[in-house]
Amino acid sequence: MTTTTPILLTHAEIADLRKEFGRTSLMGKTIDAHINELQDFMRLPIDVPGHGEAGGYEHNRHKQNYTFMNLAGRLFLITEQQQYADFVIALLEEYADKYLTFDFHVQKNTNPTGRLFHQILNEHCWLLYTSLAYSCVAAVMSDAQRTRIESRIFEPMLEMFTVKYAHDFDRIHNHGIWAVAAVGICGLAIGKREYLDMAVYGIDRNDSGGFLAQISQLFAPSGYYMEGPYYHRYAIRPTCLFAEVLQRHMPEVDIYNYKSKVIGNTVNALLSTAYPNGQFPALNDASRTMSITDMGVQVAVSVYSKHYGVDDNLLGMAKIQNRVWMHPCGLVLSRALEKAEEKAVIGMPFWPSVELNEGPDGTHGAQGFIRMQDKKGDVSQLVMNYGQHGMGHGNFDTLGISFFNRGQEVLREYGFARWVNVEPKFGGRYLDENKSYARQTIAHNAVTVDEKCQNDFNVSRADSVHGLPHFFSVQSDVISGMSAFANQHYDGLSMQRSVFMLALDELESPLLIDLYRLVGEDEHQYDYSHQYEGQIIRTNFDYQSHQEVSTLGTDNGYQHLWNLASGKPTDTGLVSWLQNNTYYTWLGTSSNDSCEVYFTRTGANDPSFNLRSEPAFIYRTHGKTSLLASVVETHGYFNEEFEQSVNARGKVSNIKVIGHNESASVVEITTADSIVTLMVSNQVTAQTSEHSVTFNQKTYQFNGHYAVEITAVKQEK
Amino acid sequence: MTTTTPILLTHAEIADLRKEFGRTSLMGKTIDAHINELQDFMRLPIDVPGHGEAGGYEHNRHKQNYTFMNLAGRLFLITEQQQYADFVIALLEEYADKYLTFDFHVQKNTNPTGRLFHQILNEHCWLLYTSLAYSCVAAVMSDAQRTRIESRIFEPMLEMFTVKYAHDFDRIHNHGIWAVAAVGICGLAIGKREYLDMAVYGIDRNDSGGFLAQISQLFAPSGYYMEGPYYHRYAIRPTCLFAEVLQRHMPEVDIYNYKSKVIGNTVNALLSTAYPNGQFPALNDASRTMSITDMGVQVAVSVYSKHYGVDDNLLGMAKIQNRVWMHPCGLVLSRALEKAEEKAVIGMPFWPSVELNEGPDGTHGAQGFIRMQDKKGDVSQLVMNYGQHGMGHGNFDTLGISFFNRGQEVLREYGFARWVNVEPKFGGRYLDENKSYARQTIAHNAVTVDEKCQNDFNVSRADSVHGLPHFFSVQSDVISGMSAFANQHYDGLSMQRSVFMLALDELESPLLIDLYRLVGEDEHQYDYSHQYEGQIIRTNFDYQSHQEVSTLGTDNGYQHLWNLASGKPTDTGLVSWLQNNTYYTWLGTSSNDSCEVYFTRTGANDPSFNLRSEPAFIYRTHGKTSLLASVVETHGYFNEEFEQSVNARGKVSNIKVIGHNESASVVEITTADSIVTLMVSNQVTAQTSEHSVTFNQKTYQFNGHYAVEITAVKQEK
Repeated sequence: MTTTTPILLTHAEIADLRKEFGRTSLMGKTIDAHINELQDFMRLPIDVPGHGEAGGYEHNRHKQNYTFMNLAGRLFLITEQQQYADFVIALLEEYADKYLTFDFHVQKNTNPTGRLFHQILNEHCWLLYTSLAYSCVAAVMSDAQRTRIESRIFEPMLEMFTVKYAHDFDRIHNHGIWAVAAVGICGLAIGKREYLDMAVYGIDRNDSGGFLAQISQLFAPSGYYMEGPYYHRYAIRPTCLFAEVLQRHMPEVDIYNYKSKVIGNTVNALLSTAYPNGQFPALNDASRTMSITDMGVQVAVSVYSKHYGVDDNLLGMAKIQNRVWMHPCGLVLSRALEKAEEKAVIGMPFWPSVELNEGPDGTHGAQGFIRMQDKKGDVSQLVMNYGQHGMGHGNFDTLGISFFNRGQEVLREYGFARWVNVEPKFGGRYLDENKSYARQTIAHNAVTVDEKCQNDFNVSRADSVHGLPHFFSVQSDVISGMSAFANQHYDGLSMQRSVFMLALDELESPLLIDLYRLVGEDEHQYDYSHQYEGQIIRTNFDYQSHQEVSTLGTDNGYQHLWNLASGKPTDTGLVSWLQNNTYYTWLGTSSNDSCEVYFTRTGANDPSFNLRSEPAFIYRTHGKTSLLASVVETHGYFNEEFEQSVNARGKVSNIKVIGHNESASVVEITTADSIVTLMVSNQVTAQTSEHSVTFNQKTYQFNGHYAVEITAVKQEK
Repeated sequence: MTTTTPILLTHAEIADLRKEFGRTSLMGKTIDAHINELQDFMRLPIDVPGHGEAGGYEHNRHKQNYTFMNLAGRLFLITEQQQYADFVIALLEEYADKYLTFDFHVQKNTNPTGRLFHQILNEHCWLLYTSLAYSCVAAVMSDAQRTRIESRIFEPMLEMFTVKYAHDFDRIHNHGIWAVAAVGICGLAIGKREYLDMAVYGIDRNDSGGFLAQISQLFAPSGYYMEGPYYHRYAIRPTCLFAEVLQRHMPEVDIYNYKSKVIGNTVNALLSTAYPNGQFPALNDASRTMSITDMGVQVAVSVYSKHYGVDDNLLGMAKIQNRVWMHPCGLVLSRALEKAEEKAVIGMPFWPSVELNEGPDGTHGAQGFIRMQDKKGDVSQLVMNYGQHGMGHGNFDTLGISFFNRGQEVLREYGFARWVNVEPKFGGRYLDENKSYARQTIAHNAVTVDEKCQNDFNVSRADSVHGLPHFFSVQSDVISGMSAFANQHYDGLSMQRSVFMLALDELESPLLIDLYRLVGEDEHQYDYSHQYEGQIIRTNFDYQSHQEVSTLGTDNGYQHLWNLASGKPTDTGLVSWLQNNTYYTWLGTSSNDSCEVYFTRTGANDPSFNLRSEPAFIYRTHGKTSLLASVVETHGYFNEEFEQSVNARGKVSNIKVIGHNESASVVEITTADSIVTLMVSNQVTAQTSEHSVTFNQKTYQFNGHYAVEITAVKQEK
């Protein structure tokens, strides 16, 4: 009947892991840390509580129970300490006593409920980890114990997931991977292989459901997952765990080569979105602080290392993670790092720039990630969204950007309006302000037209459109850039955004250059919004600070913005701020006659203080077809503790629009030592096409998608 | 003529330091770090610029020049690398060329100006460090070089400080220590011992000026410096440097035993103010981020270790500093740490609780610092100011408190409104908002009466009064507390604040208990203000968030507070917030009939964005003689990245005022498991006195200054 061997480990592998115990390798540190965590938890009395709120004690306790059973099962095998097996068995017995006495939770939202948790997603997690733990300790249990636990926990759960909630089991969705992996692994653990088949091929074995269908359909050809990295890293853990199970128990699938290595491809895509410090950009309704240290990403990096090979960037990520998966896959990575560090210091990862296409065939736009390293080794990362709407989690921010350097996000994503697992904050669920603010266009680094949200905040309309890539060019050491169109996101309006990083010798860090072109038939109001953090240091224009403040608008997120101050730059506007140790200076202009800059802060119409209080400045202008152009210079250093401040003013002095038309845009940037002319094609043309445009009697000619000319200016010394 | 030996080092000592070069001891790490910093700086071309703005390039460059000459002088001796001597000599030659060609700066404030800097304070620093550097390299210079440098730099500077600015030289002030130390050290360096005498005994050798007068008069008997730790740590560096010079060159003074060891005493007082993470509380118009890692404090800890002995707390501080003074004094500390770490891990310092008296004879009130460690070893620190006004830097916050635990300040000091050395922010000087907001009573964790500042923001009135200590009691492991009166800070009003930390088994961290009693003849408005940071999680009362916001008031700091929301708790008010990883819950009440809680944020009437945007909540009530009572519970854990939240609600459910009169106050606190009755004496009486008060037909009797009774309550399970 029951398999009594561990699902994910052989005896030889266990012996290998045992050799790392007590060493200072990553695997040794991992084992040591897991033992400490488990020992702390085992000091508490065993508890299997009844129903509670999401994020409340009961919810957390069930989560801790499966987390620590999962660790204890493997630690029993690795350390040969019977106490860890006893812990798993005692807890399983307690669940066997109680599980069927719990009724299903009362349904509060659209998700089906479990007996332990308010949504079955969590019950899937419970089943997956507990089944793995069970497979590690079953050999030291009696037949009677095994029968009792299988019949009172595992079988009813399998029944619930594949019969009661059968309609959900085959749904293609990131949660679905948890469902199939849990069912498949549990089937193996209790010797009912039919559940493994069902998990791999779907309930009806017709490829419309099951793991293979999930991994074939969930990811774009680039490997990108449309809901963004935060949700991707959540799905990556069962994906990699179950792949490893199939590699061992269904070798005929050849899972790591399946569909042109979709597993490796999607892990690689996920990792390639991360900022240099390991945090994921909060694309699409996500936490701002999720990073590669997440356990799921640890599993993914370990699995990738074993089956697709290790390189310096993976080693750099493993160093940030400071852990590996406690499994033979993790051992491969741990040994590779040990070996590499004998030869050289492994630095921070410097992932290559990458454009990740979207949609089933990769034609629904893309997400662009450009990275450039400065002379001191710091990596600037520029992210632009010109892909598709992320389903229910989609933010309305096509052509939105974020920008990161010196260890911090500079042009920032607000992230979701949610306090995950904070029970007094609406049970840790999404808050009303998530819709009314965080997902609105104005909450992003984008242009909001006529104070309206893109696609009118209509999810089905947004799902039907996507960005159109123009170019993604990262070959040069001097300038990298990307450009895309979004022509269906506002009625009667086409938009093109072209963003660049330019390395100039005289500048400490790459200069962010941003050309946002809007082609309208009528006059519109354009709000070019910049979400920053820190302290305003200076501006080059007068503004009026309001004595009484009201909101910037009444809807589409504007109702949450306090209008603190505003002023009218006479020409190019300058706003400089200090974020932690670094100064940033923004210079912005447009092809229109007039503009106004608003300084805002979130927090209006927020009766439960659900929003964070965060500042932004918005460059507002009016026009028909318009080009908005700006730069952000990264400069100087401030250390309050040591009372040091250098280069607080920066070196870029101006940006002006020379001209723009349907063919090309030309802007000129002035710095202390140079004049930079940037010419950008505004038409979808071949890389080799020639452009010639004339503005103010001057003709600008260039080949390809864009060109930059840098002229040294005479120093006034 | 010229002494050609180093002022602060003997040949034997240099040889000892040389032995640490390349080792992993603190001294080895210090030497290594200094070499790297110096090498970085030496790669730049030599530059002696002309006049510039405070915080601008020129100012910083002169500062860097003396900093690196000071390092290079010693590194030349320690490493025997001629390049370091050459660097000092080349830079001195450049100063000799230019110094006398610079005119005095144009005077912009009340401080006398120098030729290099906008105020002579900085020129004193320059002279002190450069003289030390010169003494290290003079032996390898020619007579002609020495003569030129002495006559073109050092002698004119001595002339300026002791003749042109003679009136300032003998002033008793923290800046004065820099003046006398610089002059004395320079005199030694160029072989004019008369300047050393002048520096030690004053220009007129009559004890009204000079170093001995300074250190005799600047500090209270407790060692506290009235301007607070931020200014104290600035004065401590020349104090310790010059003490060490006198120990070596004027042994007859016996400086380390002078005036009952005033040097050791004041170093000890400074260190004992620091929070457990090494940061100094921002008492009196100070930076929030100044800490013991400041170079001056490094020198002080090293000097103290050599001359007064090392203990575990000093070792813990040295570990936070991760450096020592590159001097034989630092070597003592480095060796002590090395030896101690062979036996055991040195943890964070846990400084004893201490009451630091103020005033020349210690009778002008005090500053109280109470610390308590929780079961996990975390230290909570409670600070109350019941001393004197800190001269020009005085904040109007007598009876103000701050509270720190888990690595963060919870009830916070705003600190000064100043961006030190940030040139575009008013040259890095104090901003207007420092007076209009940061020094006002409402900016502090205190009670503001009738929306007025204490002492009407009148410095001379404030200088004439001080707090009156009532008790400072830290013997018990269960409860520690302090109490004081401030009876002259508002007309017709006496105030008493009694603050405690209570350790209850059921609570994770000590509970802060706060009884603020006001004795007024007339009806007043009391604003009991709490400066917190983070996100409001919940309240137990309804409040109205305003659709349009205006300021809470018109003057005394209120004009800078946006009135975001307010509501009326029906009984005890509860406000709970999340600061980084920890939840805090405040429960507050009063003996008055009604109250209102206001949620505010700084930023109004701040036309240059000089203030940080920070939240507060204010419990407002009206009454004559009133007792305001509150607790702050520290509880739970939140980690956004790992999506963990535990104990978000806390265990304290209520606080109520049982009664208060001229004899005593009684409050009752209810927690999940206990009822705590706290009785506090309201009269200045002996520790042994007996109290008996009757409220609501119940008589409360206790001996001494206060008593606590803890009764277990039945669990409802």
